[in-house]
Amino acid sequence: MRIRLYAALSLCLILLGIAPKLARGADFVPLPAIAPIPENNTMTQEKIELGKMLFFEPRLSGSNWISCATCHNPVFGYTDRIPRALGHGMAEGPRNTPTVLNAAFLNLQFWDGRAKTLEEQALGPIQAGVEMNQKLDLAVQTLKGIPEYVSRFKRVFGEEDPIKQENLAKAIAAFERTLITPNSPFDRYLQGDKQALSEKAQKGMALFIKKGCVDCHAGPILSDSDFHAIIVPGSTDLGRYTVTKNEAEKHAFRTPTLRNVELTAPYMNNGSVPDLDLAVKLMGREALGLELSEEETGDMVSFLKSLTGEQPRFDYPILP
Amino acid sequence: MRIRLYAALSLCLILLGIAPKLARGADFVPLPAIAPIPENNTMTQEKIELGKMLFFEPRLSGSNWISCATCHNPVFGYTDRIPRALGHGMAEGPRNTPTVLNAAFLNLQFWDGRAKTLEEQALGPIQAGVEMNQKLDLAVQTLKGIPEYVSRFKRVFGEEDPIKQENLAKAIAAFERTLITPNSPFDRYLQGDKQALSEKAQKGMALFIKKGCVDCHAGPILSDSDFHAIIVPGSTDLGRYTVTKNEAEKHAFRTPTLRNVELTAPYMNNGSVPDLDLAVKLMGREALGLELSEEETGDMVSFLKSLTGEQPRFDYPILP
Repeated sequence: MRIRLYAALSLCLILLGIAPKLARGADFVPLPAIAPIPENNTMTQEKIELGKMLFFEPRLSGSNWISCATCHNPVFGYTDRIPRALGHGMAEGPRNTPTVLNAAFLNLQFWDGRAKTLEEQALGPIQAGVEMNQKLDLAVQTLKGIPEYVSRFKRVFGEEDPIKQENLAKAIAAFERTLITPNSPFDRYLQGDKQALSEKAQKGMALFIKKGCVDCHAGPILSDSDFHAIIVPGSTDLGRYTVTKNEAEKHAFRTPTLRNVELTAPYMNNGSVPDLDLAVKLMGREALGLELSEEETGDMVSFLKSLTGEQPRFDYPILP
Repeated sequence: MRIRLYAALSLCLILLGIAPKLARGADFVPLPAIAPIPENNTMTQEKIELGKMLFFEPRLSGSNWISCATCHNPVFGYTDRIPRALGHGMAEGPRNTPTVLNAAFLNLQFWDGRAKTLEEQALGPIQAGVEMNQKLDLAVQTLKGIPEYVSRFKRVFGEEDPIKQENLAKAIAAFERTLITPNSPFDRYLQGDKQALSEKAQKGMALFIKKGCVDCHAGPILSDSDFHAIIVPGSTDLGRYTVTKNEAEKHAFRTPTLRNVELTAPYMNNGSVPDLDLAVKLMGREALGLELSEEETGDMVSFLKSLTGEQPRFDYPILP
């Protein structure tokens, strides 16, 4: 029955002449089981475990109260479910917290792409005044004062004096590379299980391709890792321009991943869009110049919800 | 060999005439596998799961950023490893965060015992201006706006309009009753495994009894749930007096549990004592009028570290 429906739907689409656009579906790739691992930061179980401890370690912050996991909160898909990040002193930062889930597949980190690797990214929020507000050398000193960290860093890095910024970043990045979410309904569909997506989600996927969303949201995490300027309510943020000073990149932000987007509301660089329905309509209007109908929007949201994968599961670290 | 040593040690103690004090060892009780469950809040798996979600739920706070788990942080034995609690606006509260681990065995909650039950306790920090800073009716409204909570509360409480303060408290308390830490070396020793404690820890245990620590730190969680005034550096806090206005209870605080005390530094009502070594010496001096030697202190610390039990293990809740 479903197969016949699918065949009929495919035929309609071909008749409507959108077959070439549907071919863009080839831009969809199931999420790989393992994230790319850089040559200079091999993964080991002990390094991942150390990185997990550091990710949850409030003593890396100036207040000893805020850890990476405070804003990249596992209960909210490694985000904070508020418009703009809160941090040191409960001050509000300028941007919405991006998820760490599958960030290992991005070519550039942060909304403005100012870090190339997870290693480079990891040290930013520790130092930022409105985030963890700690000097890196003080964070390193703190860790050196905790014997269990000394022995763990030694075991992991095999160096005489292993607690240093570079290794702190490497351990956190190694842990973050494990935060991937395979086997979403979308992935299972791509791998051949045509039952994995509802008809509504399948219609949404066809629309996602036909309307051109896939032009930017493609590849394993549905992001081109490139920059686009979209008019977002209330945002005056210069985005990529703050990094490159390139006039053409004013207000441009790196395309966010859509994986687990259901878990990472609110949306846009300033978190001004509270739900997926509004996010889809906004992107239709501002990115594609289209007014999407209620039905189209609903179908698209159904598709977007199929991008929620298996969440990472692990025991809390018990910190020394 | 160990048995002979033990027999010899026992004989020495009897010869020294301290056998009557050692009989106080009978005040030691292994941690029960299940905490007492009140008749009006039966435990079900679904209620525990809901309570876990609420314990990790930042949207119960005025800022949508702070949850019970922020200060009762699982990585630090359900405390925050700082002297005095931080909360809303990152303001500092007046007291050290007590652990939730095994709190289900206490007869009175909070340092000043102002709540009798976990249910009564649970609603306090949500409202406190220096903690989560939220009005309870707003917290209830927030939950009512999240469909998954509506259906979960209905399933758990079987009521028409189940999201209310009372049930919020009941669910959180039900989860907290699962936060117990059995099978510490101390428990295994009490249950007959004489190898479970090192000789140093056994000497510490004997001292703990002989010196009189056990007069207040007895029972399954090594607390008499009673109030005692101890001079603590820097503390001007009136403690139990703020609840009872009883002059005799000025500066008195409820005896804290010693279970998992290794994980819950710093110590005392104002968190002014950074480590166990200093805590043991301070208590010897102020509570018992004794100057403990370095060796005695070391033995006692060894014993206290044997009170660390198996930590609760569970997957993070994924919040709706």
